[in-house]
Amino acid sequence: MPGKLPGMKLATLRNGSPDGELVVVSRNLERAVRATDIANNLLAALESWPRAEPRLRALAAALEHGSAKGAIDFPAADVAPPLPRTWQWLDASAFKSHGELMARAFKHDFSDAKPGQPLMYQGGSDDFVGPWDDMPLPSETDGIDFEAEVAVVVDRVPMGTSASRALEHVKLVMLANDASLRSLAVAEMKSGFGWIHAKPATSFSPVAVTPDELGADWRDGRLYLPVRVAWNGREFGRPDAGAMSFGFDELIAHAAYSRSLSAGTIIGSGTISNDDYATVGSACIAERRAIEMAERGAAVTGYMRFGDRVRIEVLDADGRSVFGAIDQRMVAAGTAALP
Amino acid sequence: MPGKLPGMKLATLRNGSPDGELVVVSRNLERAVRATDIANNLLAALESWPRAEPRLRALAAALEHGSAKGAIDFPAADVAPPLPRTWQWLDASAFKSHGELMARAFKHDFSDAKPGQPLMYQGGSDDFVGPWDDMPLPSETDGIDFEAEVAVVVDRVPMGTSASRALEHVKLVMLANDASLRSLAVAEMKSGFGWIHAKPATSFSPVAVTPDELGADWRDGRLYLPVRVAWNGREFGRPDAGAMSFGFDELIAHAAYSRSLSAGTIIGSGTISNDDYATVGSACIAERRAIEMAERGAAVTGYMRFGDRVRIEVLDADGRSVFGAIDQRMVAAGTAALP
Repeated sequence: MPGKLPGMKLATLRNGSPDGELVVVSRNLERAVRATDIANNLLAALESWPRAEPRLRALAAALEHGSAKGAIDFPAADVAPPLPRTWQWLDASAFKSHGELMARAFKHDFSDAKPGQPLMYQGGSDDFVGPWDDMPLPSETDGIDFEAEVAVVVDRVPMGTSASRALEHVKLVMLANDASLRSLAVAEMKSGFGWIHAKPATSFSPVAVTPDELGADWRDGRLYLPVRVAWNGREFGRPDAGAMSFGFDELIAHAAYSRSLSAGTIIGSGTISNDDYATVGSACIAERRAIEMAERGAAVTGYMRFGDRVRIEVLDADGRSVFGAIDQRMVAAGTAALP
Repeated sequence: MPGKLPGMKLATLRNGSPDGELVVVSRNLERAVRATDIANNLLAALESWPRAEPRLRALAAALEHGSAKGAIDFPAADVAPPLPRTWQWLDASAFKSHGELMARAFKHDFSDAKPGQPLMYQGGSDDFVGPWDDMPLPSETDGIDFEAEVAVVVDRVPMGTSASRALEHVKLVMLANDASLRSLAVAEMKSGFGWIHAKPATSFSPVAVTPDELGADWRDGRLYLPVRVAWNGREFGRPDAGAMSFGFDELIAHAAYSRSLSAGTIIGSGTISNDDYATVGSACIAERRAIEMAERGAAVTGYMRFGDRVRIEVLDADGRSVFGAIDQRMVAAGTAALP
């Protein structure tokens, strides 16, 4: 059944409630239709996916054919993240070139700790930031960085699920800006307890899409498309997200070794990075600084200032935005424009 | 107003829903009354605390005076955790003696990393285990340990809240068993990303109590009472929980440096530990092993086996259980008795 229906794109409109209002979005990101007859919000849809999915797909087909009642223009620049909050956000570091550059810069040999295993931390999942919302941060001196990533949303994954069964649980794919405070990161890393201060809220793309909607660009648990990153309007990098050393199948299995993952859990790829960074650039400032240290002996590029913007977007082969763009300013906490 | 009403004890009955059903429990833990007219569940109550609290306190007073309609016997050994799931669980390591012993055993100097700051990690909060439920774990060879802790539940804490304002946000106090897989902990610690495998689900006491219910035993953001820990029916330790080097005021402010904390966030003390461990014993096996290594050159005590039980309880000056007991078996995943 689902194979005969198109894939779909889902988003969340703000409606004053913490979880927002679920909408189905057209493939070209121009139109949307409320799906609240099917599920109040995306988290609720994920918790009842077998029931919700076929109805959402049917609504997506109707929207695509112009027959969906109550369709509206999709306000891509004024939406909540697809999941404004969820039960768990686990973010990996799945790109070898990024890990090697960070290890050199931070003088921290990650790979010795857990040979053959991905690195993964748990971040705050209670207060995500919309794709065009200001990102409120405590201080400009903390080394403010963006991190462009791919993330997947899973349904319930039982403890002990193997990598070979893990991709069945991937329901949606989206982009993330995993903002980081680099000046605080090393000390927290050395504590062994992971990051609390260095990882403020995370932001996600306007829409989350089903894997089948990505066609051949989604395979082996990876998204084989370049992710374009711009800092204050200038291209900063366009590394291919398909270069993960560990696919999402392995990341999900890793996450579920000693815990079951609730429906709605988000798993991130970590900063996208390619071996040919000299050509494609980077998806976070810390990596560019690490390259500068290696090549010139010192980091030249500074971190973000309040008011700086980052834009993260993926275009398909025809140049169309797949997930919509994350495009947001970093601001002092307390001065963020209210969503 | 609240000062004129008694404190209260809250718990959650299983009702087939993920968040369970909120009940108010009598001071002696013998009777309970459904509070679902006030809030469906504890998480919902915390999200509307100013409205819910006076009504819950009035219901608690009625239950205490025997005038609450529909009161039932409180099934302390068959309840869900007060919050079966919540948006965030941040656990600290706030006892100096524990930190020093662990640093020696793990050859990891925590204090150098963040001098003057507490250590804190984020753990899974989507799938807590009831106080008498089996704790499902992947393997007996992972170094299964219990950790007896005190935990507080806060309402919404804005980013940047200072320690001097933090205790206003403490709505409830409870006990935790922060189960740990010690054989996996060191490698994850060395990765710098914190614990994913080494921290399976956490368990909490049958009831959570308001700070005023604790009287003079709750002061300076600390619970000044010994926490009794028994392993397979034999006393293992009874360290005083008041010996925290950082109070919950400092832990909450630390947690909120670069993030706002949603209502329902739980903050843990880390393993309770006293300087005179020779007299009072320990609240986790790893600490006893560290003491054995320091005193005899080798760890003698093994970790838990499947089927082993741990019991964690706090008695007041009159010998009455304050939070009810956590009393649970560690079992192989897949063999846990269904709640």
